[in-house]
Amino acid sequence: MKKTGGAMLSMLNLDRQSGMPLTRQLENKIRKAVLDGSLPQNARMPSTRQLATDLGVSRLTIKNAFEQLTTEGFLETRRGSGTYVAILSTGITPIKSSSKRRRKRTSKVGPIAPHVQRIQNSLATTRLSHVRAFRPGIPALDLFPRRAWSEAYSRALRSHDSFLLGYGPSSGLDQLKAAIAAHVLDSRGIECDPNQVVITSGAQQAFSLILLTLLTPGDTIWMEDPGHIAFRDAANLHGFGIGSVPLDAEGFSLSSALATYDPCNLIFVTPSHQHPLGMTMSLSRRLELLDVAKSQNSWIIEDDYDSEFHYEQRPLPALKALDKQNRVLYVGSFSKSMFPAMRLGYLICPSGLEAAFSAAETLLSQNVSLPQQKAMAYFMEDGSFNSHIRKMKQVYQTRRDTLVTALQNHASNILRPEPCLTGMHLVTRFTNSSVSDQFLANQLWEAGIDCLPLSIFRDQATVDPGLLLGFACAPENQINDKVIRAVRCLEAAMPTIQVTEE
Amino acid sequence: MKKTGGAMLSMLNLDRQSGMPLTRQLENKIRKAVLDGSLPQNARMPSTRQLATDLGVSRLTIKNAFEQLTTEGFLETRRGSGTYVAILSTGITPIKSSSKRRRKRTSKVGPIAPHVQRIQNSLATTRLSHVRAFRPGIPALDLFPRRAWSEAYSRALRSHDSFLLGYGPSSGLDQLKAAIAAHVLDSRGIECDPNQVVITSGAQQAFSLILLTLLTPGDTIWMEDPGHIAFRDAANLHGFGIGSVPLDAEGFSLSSALATYDPCNLIFVTPSHQHPLGMTMSLSRRLELLDVAKSQNSWIIEDDYDSEFHYEQRPLPALKALDKQNRVLYVGSFSKSMFPAMRLGYLICPSGLEAAFSAAETLLSQNVSLPQQKAMAYFMEDGSFNSHIRKMKQVYQTRRDTLVTALQNHASNILRPEPCLTGMHLVTRFTNSSVSDQFLANQLWEAGIDCLPLSIFRDQATVDPGLLLGFACAPENQINDKVIRAVRCLEAAMPTIQVTEE
Repeated sequence: MKKTGGAMLSMLNLDRQSGMPLTRQLENKIRKAVLDGSLPQNARMPSTRQLATDLGVSRLTIKNAFEQLTTEGFLETRRGSGTYVAILSTGITPIKSSSKRRRKRTSKVGPIAPHVQRIQNSLATTRLSHVRAFRPGIPALDLFPRRAWSEAYSRALRSHDSFLLGYGPSSGLDQLKAAIAAHVLDSRGIECDPNQVVITSGAQQAFSLILLTLLTPGDTIWMEDPGHIAFRDAANLHGFGIGSVPLDAEGFSLSSALATYDPCNLIFVTPSHQHPLGMTMSLSRRLELLDVAKSQNSWIIEDDYDSEFHYEQRPLPALKALDKQNRVLYVGSFSKSMFPAMRLGYLICPSGLEAAFSAAETLLSQNVSLPQQKAMAYFMEDGSFNSHIRKMKQVYQTRRDTLVTALQNHASNILRPEPCLTGMHLVTRFTNSSVSDQFLANQLWEAGIDCLPLSIFRDQATVDPGLLLGFACAPENQINDKVIRAVRCLEAAMPTIQVTEE
Repeated sequence: MKKTGGAMLSMLNLDRQSGMPLTRQLENKIRKAVLDGSLPQNARMPSTRQLATDLGVSRLTIKNAFEQLTTEGFLETRRGSGTYVAILSTGITPIKSSSKRRRKRTSKVGPIAPHVQRIQNSLATTRLSHVRAFRPGIPALDLFPRRAWSEAYSRALRSHDSFLLGYGPSSGLDQLKAAIAAHVLDSRGIECDPNQVVITSGAQQAFSLILLTLLTPGDTIWMEDPGHIAFRDAANLHGFGIGSVPLDAEGFSLSSALATYDPCNLIFVTPSHQHPLGMTMSLSRRLELLDVAKSQNSWIIEDDYDSEFHYEQRPLPALKALDKQNRVLYVGSFSKSMFPAMRLGYLICPSGLEAAFSAAETLLSQNVSLPQQKAMAYFMEDGSFNSHIRKMKQVYQTRRDTLVTALQNHASNILRPEPCLTGMHLVTRFTNSSVSDQFLANQLWEAGIDCLPLSIFRDQATVDPGLLLGFACAPENQINDKVIRAVRCLEAAMPTIQVTEE
């Protein structure tokens, strides 16, 4: 009996340590060899008996593999003459796979969409997977009541029928919608029907939902500048033009928008706590904004991202609470009030659009995890949510004060914190206004400290250099040390800057 | 002391039964009255003492409300003269809110995007929130191991640091990516680096991610006709043109596509189990498809939606396993193998595109619930996932056989089931090919039975009327009764049809 060739034997070399059955291994190897041409089409395979002997495996192993590969079309049996490599599609060009060649080929296939390319390496997104002082927008994860949340989730899974495991209503669970409607009435003065609440996987998804549901190609948007990067990116992603509108002391400068741009279809604002600079939009500006939206027939997105946390006084009611025109889409999130990883948020849509948003949600992602929605509803109904917010408000106030004191004690030559009555981060400005805040933020990152440079939020506006320092995620007992470390790092980096810019 | 007017008293009428503090109630009512003009601008408010007496509440309640509303800008205090309604933005036109008028106004604001409008009432989506025999695509939720899953979730929440509560890496947890890479190698013959795995919130989101990352406006797509509604909807949502390609016995008819259309940028196929008709794409067709994609430089989406469940024989390896060109985007989901409500899936992207997909995921929804990803990784690592699939395969085989027998016993005059070796639903055809399957499916829905009419999957193709009957979600002991009920319903509805169409 002719022995199997050495080349084939080494090609079909099996790994007895691997968890994968030998038959399966053999199939994979033969398939690969056929596809890359090392087993040429129409070649005669060794007999099962011969191959079994040469590979030192049972004949059944070989037979099973040949049978499967014959079913699949890689091999074919010719009566009385044995098993052959099948003659596959005529056009096929065997290609040796090598990771180097593969990578090269990628660039030949069509380009990546430019908006995706642009943000691939953006600072705001690439560092988002870390939880590190003083990252803005991250709550006190060290204090999140994991056990209570885990129990709510188990209860949701235990106590309900199959409904909660299925696709469910795409706009969300009624029970959670009702809890949210009660919450926004109480905390933000918004009166809405629970059906107007659309459950999303967070604010980011809400932005896409709104853009895809209410705008059509060619539509335009006005937004604050400096403004919310994530919204600007979402608008770019979906191809809408943005008119950047400067800020004044009351926030979004309506007069500037009207003087500069044609009427738009959508206005994006953060009235409670401008993102990132932090001013509150005055009542009269809010009313003017609603009037303008009416006169030019545009929608308004109100992103109310961290209004739960206010320290010295209660916030103004939401813009949505003033909206008699049914034009405001209110976007809320549990990322700050619970934890970002849960991916749960909501939008309150104008009445009459419930079905449209439900359909859009189906198109974008079917729905949002139902057991988690149920757990969140329990959490809100039994008061755990409000009690967590109350506790966090105290914690954040302490962390804010600790950070401000540490900055005053150690960084007063470098950074000047602005007043902060709301939210989870301080706006700080460099006393030397000629530095590059992006360079310095990168230096801080290298030194183990996270923060966001103010200038990354700008589009056309001039923004004095500064840093957003998130205090919510930084345990009190670490704040002072981190500030000292940051100051050392900045002091070391400063001369570099000044030399560079002279 | 002048008494407060009766109109104002009834306007400010407080509800002592409500859980909301009286101060808060008073604020809400005054705000509303100012906004709708029932408290005219510049009007003098009653004194706090007078109002307290008239409303029967403490003076402090009134004072606090006035103070808050003054801070907000609704009221203003004039020295020595009391409190007045503020003179708000000059342009403001008071509008009485009434739900009727609101609803009317909605239609005056810009139109809803046409793709969203079109699917608002689509059969495929609106009934998705029910779990009812014989809905296709729903697994055996009655048998899902809730306790084990709930324990995996608690373990994930318990055992990890803050990282798992934060934003996390947008393309997913490394641990889960590794588990998925091992799974697709073992079950689908796909060799990939774990970094090529992008965690999504299900196949639907994967479609949007791919379209937004790899296509640019004006790009075109070829897809199977009849084909996957959810993909067609997603492509419409993002504005891409679709060339509908008919099917032959081997699936997607490449020759027809080449004869009919200009080269496209993306090809969407379901090679393992054509959606909805169920044929398997032959090996030679797969290789030809890869060749064509190479020659015209297009991407391929392989949606492998239910390949875990195969009964008489092992499936062909995935198209992705044959892809030496780095062109195939493999889309997998846990909706069928676990449960739809978890919203977890994955795509395996060509190497070199990892960063682009990670960025796109950030833009669309930041990421996917991390504790859930961790729980899923545990579930895969400890064998629970494979063991669940093995059990379900047996259950589904039994349910399939029970359904086929019941149809043969009771429905042979009406419906003819086609062979089913894979997946979770039967394709059945009406013996009378002149009926309207959509009408009949609606009649069945009214009778408490869910299924999908074949014709809703078509675009331009001619499709003989039939029903997709999902057997996975129907407990064995209910199948026979449901079929009997369905037959009664269909028999009652048939004459109507025939009369209509004569």
